[in-house]
Amino acid sequence: MDLFIGMDLGGTNLKYALGNENGEIIIKKSRPSQANQSQKTIFENMFIAVEELKAEAEKRKNKILSIGVGSPGSIDFETGQLKGSTPNLPNWAKAPIKKTLEEKFNISTWADNDANIMALAEARLGAGKGYKNILCLTLGTGIGGGILIDNQVLRGEHYSAAEVGHIIIAYNGIRCNCGNKGCLEAYTTAPAMVKRYQKKLKRLGLAYNINELNTEFIFQKASRNEGLAIETIAETCEYLGAGIASISNIIDPEVVIIGGGVSEAGDPFIKQIENEVRQYSVKAIMQNLKIVRAQMGNDAGIVGAILLAAENYSDDN
Amino acid sequence: MDLFIGMDLGGTNLKYALGNENGEIIIKKSRPSQANQSQKTIFENMFIAVEELKAEAEKRKNKILSIGVGSPGSIDFETGQLKGSTPNLPNWAKAPIKKTLEEKFNISTWADNDANIMALAEARLGAGKGYKNILCLTLGTGIGGGILIDNQVLRGEHYSAAEVGHIIIAYNGIRCNCGNKGCLEAYTTAPAMVKRYQKKLKRLGLAYNINELNTEFIFQKASRNEGLAIETIAETCEYLGAGIASISNIIDPEVVIIGGGVSEAGDPFIKQIENEVRQYSVKAIMQNLKIVRAQMGNDAGIVGAILLAAENYSDDN
Repeated sequence: MDLFIGMDLGGTNLKYALGNENGEIIIKKSRPSQANQSQKTIFENMFIAVEELKAEAEKRKNKILSIGVGSPGSIDFETGQLKGSTPNLPNWAKAPIKKTLEEKFNISTWADNDANIMALAEARLGAGKGYKNILCLTLGTGIGGGILIDNQVLRGEHYSAAEVGHIIIAYNGIRCNCGNKGCLEAYTTAPAMVKRYQKKLKRLGLAYNINELNTEFIFQKASRNEGLAIETIAETCEYLGAGIASISNIIDPEVVIIGGGVSEAGDPFIKQIENEVRQYSVKAIMQNLKIVRAQMGNDAGIVGAILLAAENYSDDN
Repeated sequence: MDLFIGMDLGGTNLKYALGNENGEIIIKKSRPSQANQSQKTIFENMFIAVEELKAEAEKRKNKILSIGVGSPGSIDFETGQLKGSTPNLPNWAKAPIKKTLEEKFNISTWADNDANIMALAEARLGAGKGYKNILCLTLGTGIGGGILIDNQVLRGEHYSAAEVGHIIIAYNGIRCNCGNKGCLEAYTTAPAMVKRYQKKLKRLGLAYNINELNTEFIFQKASRNEGLAIETIAETCEYLGAGIASISNIIDPEVVIIGGGVSEAGDPFIKQIENEVRQYSVKAIMQNLKIVRAQMGNDAGIVGAILLAAENYSDDN
């Protein structure tokens, strides 16, 4: 059997796996990404990962046909190189991923933005299976996005499409980390939720230690009918509803897939977001739009990277 | 020479033309669309238009290969039928454009949303020539939009993509005609500009007759350094900047083309919008994004319809 390597580079770990053309994982591993170290160190971790997986493939008498890599940042899909910098990997700017791995191993390599490969995994094997036009959102400490149009990942002219966290939902609103005002991300990330909840508590003279607060805590309080927590979640859903509706009014997808830590609050949260999207969407779109939870969980990145490797290899051969 | 028929159905006129595969107009005509009349009457106007153009083609000993039609509303591109209703043509709901014309004339026909065919014309022959990823906006009494991704018109799953007027730029903001709050359209159409200007005047105890006010008047006043007019235009540019940035952050285009009545205010207005877009866009996108005026003017619709006919005919043959 011919196999593919998928690598998912994150701020904490480099996850890597051997998989088949269907995106099924044969073996998966993980090691610290050493994200604060030099570009050379990060590449050396990737080299070790590939060597380990090559050894595993040889043991099984399988051939490795290609490598797929997901990384934070905008990545030029043709050259497989980062276009600029990325905040959590300070020395990873302009990293020539494709070139470095191809020169080292003489195996065809493709690199893409991590949110794109997660969307690819959901599209092919997760909540987006059977759909052609897909919007994926990942709600966590930031907001990631991936879009598929007619089964293809939408990368955009500057490989920066689907920057869903930075659509403006509140003209002249709250300052975002990106420097602009009113971005979706400034209202709906986990830290934004916690900050808003904390503010409400303070207004009533209450306060938890901010370090103890997280979105799980807020969802738990809400499940016990705590008014401020319920309010915080309702506002978040309204903001997300406006944002998702805006994006849907532009690309008109079949399905919106919501993943990431915050989405683990469960189906009632997704349902609440859906109700808000219905308020804001153009009728023709909303009538048949599905809003669902992501299904691929923590494996989305490596499965997407394996699929990236497999699909591009078969396109080329 | 083989020719194509293009028809552009509007609330006032039905424009129609004979053109070649390059979208060059051979002859163009116009008649009242009788938009308030029955579906039958509107189709009869189309029949007369086609008969006239067929006669013109025969005179020239040319053959008509296919027909393209642009119409307001969401149109199922496969069936060539309106999906719902459209405000300016009250009896045009569910109109089976493709079927009716093909049965009458036995000539292959394609129908598409009018903003899509205008975007197609700009993309192939106007301000978008040479670009693959394009966002078109038409600023008038409403806001129309068309998007091309990799040279193809983005129609969306429910044929309702590029509803650019209804992205939310101000969460919980001004009520839009669509029923939602905070839509781009509620802030940036010609009537919205006039209303805002009038309000400013009133606040100072001044007032023009609202029927005399229009955007031309406001731009003229601004050119004479009238503060309230300058303010009105500056606000409009800010709103448009936020909206265009939002859309660009999703689809990451090469060029944004701005057309419609309001855009006739000229290049300084476009430049002012561009400055605002720069405030709100993700850096990677904005660095190389061009914002330009539309070039096709009033012919955009019929040229787009001719191209729709020609491109789909050649795809099929």
